[in-house]
Amino acid sequence: MDDSRLMQSMLLDFYGQLLTEKQRECYDLHYNEDLSLSEIAEHSGISRQAVWDNIHRAEAALKATEEKTGLVKRFFETSNGLEQLREKLERLLEMTQGEANKLTAEALNDINSLRI
Amino acid sequence: MDDSRLMQSMLLDFYGQLLTEKQRECYDLHYNEDLSLSEIAEHSGISRQAVWDNIHRAEAALKATEEKTGLVKRFFETSNGLEQLREKLERLLEMTQGEANKLTAEALNDINSLRI
Repeated sequence: MDDSRLMQSMLLDFYGQLLTEKQRECYDLHYNEDLSLSEIAEHSGISRQAVWDNIHRAEAALKATEEKTGLVKRFFETSNGLEQLREKLERLLEMTQGEANKLTAEALNDINSLRI
Repeated sequence: MDDSRLMQSMLLDFYGQLLTEKQRECYDLHYNEDLSLSEIAEHSGISRQAVWDNIHRAEAALKATEEKTGLVKRFFETSNGLEQLREKLERLLEMTQGEANKLTAEALNDINSLRI
């Protein structure tokens, strides 16, 4: 998944419920399931033009929401920060013994189970 | 700041830019600055009734957005997870020496500079 594909997917994950059901469905099938407009039209029982409209309205709404709130950008910054933290803990895991090693393993587990 | 006050503040932080400017201003003055409706009316040059309407529309919009996206709830979960992680790292800092201690201090610094 390239960066822009990842971004489209994150926007849907964060703000998808703010779209209409049809917009969300068309956008998801196009960007996450990689279906063509014709395939989505057939799947959803609407015209190819209606599919196009739904996808473009969804894109505009998701983009406008992100421009206003910046929450997906914030997510990526947090995610990068946690990645740095994880690397340090992995190095610590190799350096430590006994109780400290056990605690480091627990901390790594905390990071891995964190849903940001 | 009690829990519900914290929640109102977080909702504004996350979704405030989705409100109208007047709604955001009235909501902020009421919940963050603790002004009364009359004080806000005087400050903003609108009627007390209009202040009330703006605050209540803002509350409804913020609540609806959170119910759909759950991003503030997700933030609190992440925040709690990071707090557990921070406690472990603080214990590790007391247990370790040399390079491992330095790395633990850096990891703690990563957590403290993380904006979630």
